Amino acid sequence: MEMKKDKVSPLRIPVVAEGGYAPSLSAENGRVSTAERWLAKKLLAALGHPSIAIVFWNGEEVYTATGKPIARTVLRDHAALYKLLTNPALHFGDLYSTGQIEVEGNLVEFLETAYCAYDNPERMKLLRKIQDNFLNRPRANTLDGARDNIHHHYDLGNDFYELWLDREAMQYTCAYFPEPTMTIEQAQRAKLDHVCKKLRLKPGDRVVEAGCGWGGLARHMAKYYGATVKAYNISRQQVLYAREKAKEQGLVDRVEYVEDDYRNIQGEYDVFVSVGMLEHVGPDNYPGLSNVIDRALTPNGRGLIHSIGRNRPARMNAWIEKRIFPGGYPPTLGEMMPIFETNNFSVLDVENLRLHYARTLEHWLARFDQNVEKIEQMYDGGFVRAWRLYLCGSIAAFTTGSLQLFQIAFARGTDNDLPWSREHLYK
Amino acid sequence: MEMKKDKVSPLRIPVVAEGGYAPSLSAENGRVSTAERWLAKKLLAALGHPSIAIVFWNGEEVYTATGKPIARTVLRDHAALYKLLTNPALHFGDLYSTGQIEVEGNLVEFLETAYCAYDNPERMKLLRKIQDNFLNRPRANTLDGARDNIHHHYDLGNDFYELWLDREAMQYTCAYFPEPTMTIEQAQRAKLDHVCKKLRLKPGDRVVEAGCGWGGLARHMAKYYGATVKAYNISRQQVLYAREKAKEQGLVDRVEYVEDDYRNIQGEYDVFVSVGMLEHVGPDNYPGLSNVIDRALTPNGRGLIHSIGRNRPARMNAWIEKRIFPGGYPPTLGEMMPIFETNNFSVLDVENLRLHYARTLEHWLARFDQNVEKIEQMYDGGFVRAWRLYLCGSIAAFTTGSLQLFQIAFARGTDNDLPWSREHLYK
Repeated sequence: MEMKKDKVSPLRIPVVAEGGYAPSLSAENGRVSTAERWLAKKLLAALGHPSIAIVFWNGEEVYTATGKPIARTVLRDHAALYKLLTNPALHFGDLYSTGQIEVEGNLVEFLETAYCAYDNPERMKLLRKIQDNFLNRPRANTLDGARDNIHHHYDLGNDFYELWLDREAMQYTCAYFPEPTMTIEQAQRAKLDHVCKKLRLKPGDRVVEAGCGWGGLARHMAKYYGATVKAYNISRQQVLYAREKAKEQGLVDRVEYVEDDYRNIQGEYDVFVSVGMLEHVGPDNYPGLSNVIDRALTPNGRGLIHSIGRNRPARMNAWIEKRIFPGGYPPTLGEMMPIFETNNFSVLDVENLRLHYARTLEHWLARFDQNVEKIEQMYDGGFVRAWRLYLCGSIAAFTTGSLQLFQIAFARGTDNDLPWSREHLYK
Repeated sequence: MEMKKDKVSPLRIPVVAEGGYAPSLSAENGRVSTAERWLAKKLLAALGHPSIAIVFWNGEEVYTATGKPIARTVLRDHAALYKLLTNPALHFGDLYSTGQIEVEGNLVEFLETAYCAYDNPERMKLLRKIQDNFLNRPRANTLDGARDNIHHHYDLGNDFYELWLDREAMQYTCAYFPEPTMTIEQAQRAKLDHVCKKLRLKPGDRVVEAGCGWGGLARHMAKYYGATVKAYNISRQQVLYAREKAKEQGLVDRVEYVEDDYRNIQGEYDVFVSVGMLEHVGPDNYPGLSNVIDRALTPNGRGLIHSIGRNRPARMNAWIEKRIFPGGYPPTLGEMMPIFETNNFSVLDVENLRLHYARTLEHWLARFDQNVEKIEQMYDGGFVRAWRLYLCGSIAAFTTGSLQLFQIAFARGTDNDLPWSREHLYK
């Protein structure tokens, strides 16, 4: 999940309550009208009656499922209910971040339940009907001003990421857990090796990397496989960090970090690799990316793209797109195909590592939670809530199958220098 | 490469020369005009000047590449040249089968060179220009009457296939050569095991197979994995053969062969598998196939589809489609995706076994050639030539990357009961 760096800007979450992000439950917020009670029931119905209760600002509760609720969503005021009805995908995140909505119970389980309920076209039709008939307002354009709401992913500083990413390679992408009990450091190392093996990397190979994050893969390839790597990234802060690490590890003669866009890749390479960049490229640019790869790769060149994806086409979650990753889009395998078809590349191997990303995120969340006081001091409570929601929501998206993680190995369509089996990946 | 069974009908190749399929080279066929010489040169230019010489009926030769030609195409008469120019993909096969065209040199190498030359959109534009400007005729509709030209793949009788397919499982689909030196019997067994492992097949599993050929996979699953298999096939001859074999091997209580279309699959299964049927389903029917799978599969069901495919969308070779596989269409991965997206199936693993199919076909061709006299007695010389061309052309298509072979493992999008690695495939 690398992200283009933009100007420094805060999360611009509208905070309604003065002096804090968690206004307390209070009768002052007023009584619950019959219409509001009815709308809450309809919302639960539209979500397929999940095991989630809605608790109003006065303590009154609505629950339409049988059995015990796995979580309670506490709405702090009237506005929270109406915002939630208008565009749950977008507003839930903001309302949770500011504390206008509280979740009592396990946040990941709550989100898993909500994702499963939400991921159903029929139910969404019902929700739209409620919106059209009872809220009498145009559907929200969830992308309004997304460009203005630039996240500050990479403006948060390396110190922040060092608190909760793996301590060796600073990998902000899905790890690989061939043994599910691995530590995050072991699993990120296993991921880097898995990628190198899929690329059949060997000493002397010239590699180009599109979107290199803090440069961990490039250093790994140089250090353990004897490759020469040119790694592109438009985040200056990451590039500076990456160069520093390469210097410390005596790899400057074999790893070069270039602060530039992948579209400006120059030169000829035996290997093209991109881990966690495609999510931010956008489908319109896939044929262009194909041309970049075609220009860069030798006749026997090998390629690998590692990206978050989907089973069916859908936008990124509106809140994540607005607050965390503007312009982000997780493509389906089918949507990715122009990258390969445009220049007759041959897809050799696709592996779906969906549950590995859920596991990766669980490790990140655990470390984040261990450091929550430090992070609250670095930023504020609203930031902590927003970030926790993002991590929890991502876990839920991967465990419920709303998101996938695809690793795609490819070669030119005319290249016959291919291994006869994938057994070498498991030695 | 299973095929729907239709009525018994011969290959309807128009034979122009009485009394044989290889008219001898003769000056009686007339002299070569300047225009014909010029057209032959243009044809070679349109093909990118391959290392192939064109030899006219009077022995005169045209060659536009440098170096030694790897093969010579001998045209027996004027008509052969004009037909070749009008629609090389369609007419070459017929002309070769009847002997109006002869290839001197290695047929596979010749076809590989021709495929590489032909697989280029720019060159094809040039060819079309020649056709439009100099032949002054509408472009041939290669599908004219394809339904009438029904091949007799499965009407040739099991005796014919037993002459050249593997002797254990009668697999008329791509084998798997983890060791390239394997015999075809070993490699077909390895393929069956590879499929079973990808499906995590275990004792007691209920399997449904769509398009089962002579039933080898179904028997393998029952015999070595303890599964119960219901296998569908519309070819009566294959079903009768399959039942006979199941009886011989004492598997009738665990394997049922159903003479019916895959669309009529009934019941609930732990596993859906289809090896070599998709090529004949047609992209319009993929959402329907998806619904069949959705109906059949349990919540934790596993699926695998094994099919010939492409890197880029293109029709089947016109001659193969007309004479061998009417209605056949090798899809790209992107074109296959409606099978999965329609019902939120999650693609877990894609493996491209392109070169394994070339190797498989080499084994088939070698056995075919060992039995060529027997086959010529069973049918005739034209049949032998057509069949050799089909086998050689298929080898060339897989070695040049014009065709791919995809194995796609999938599960429901909501299923989290997934292995953490693919290592179990290699144990």
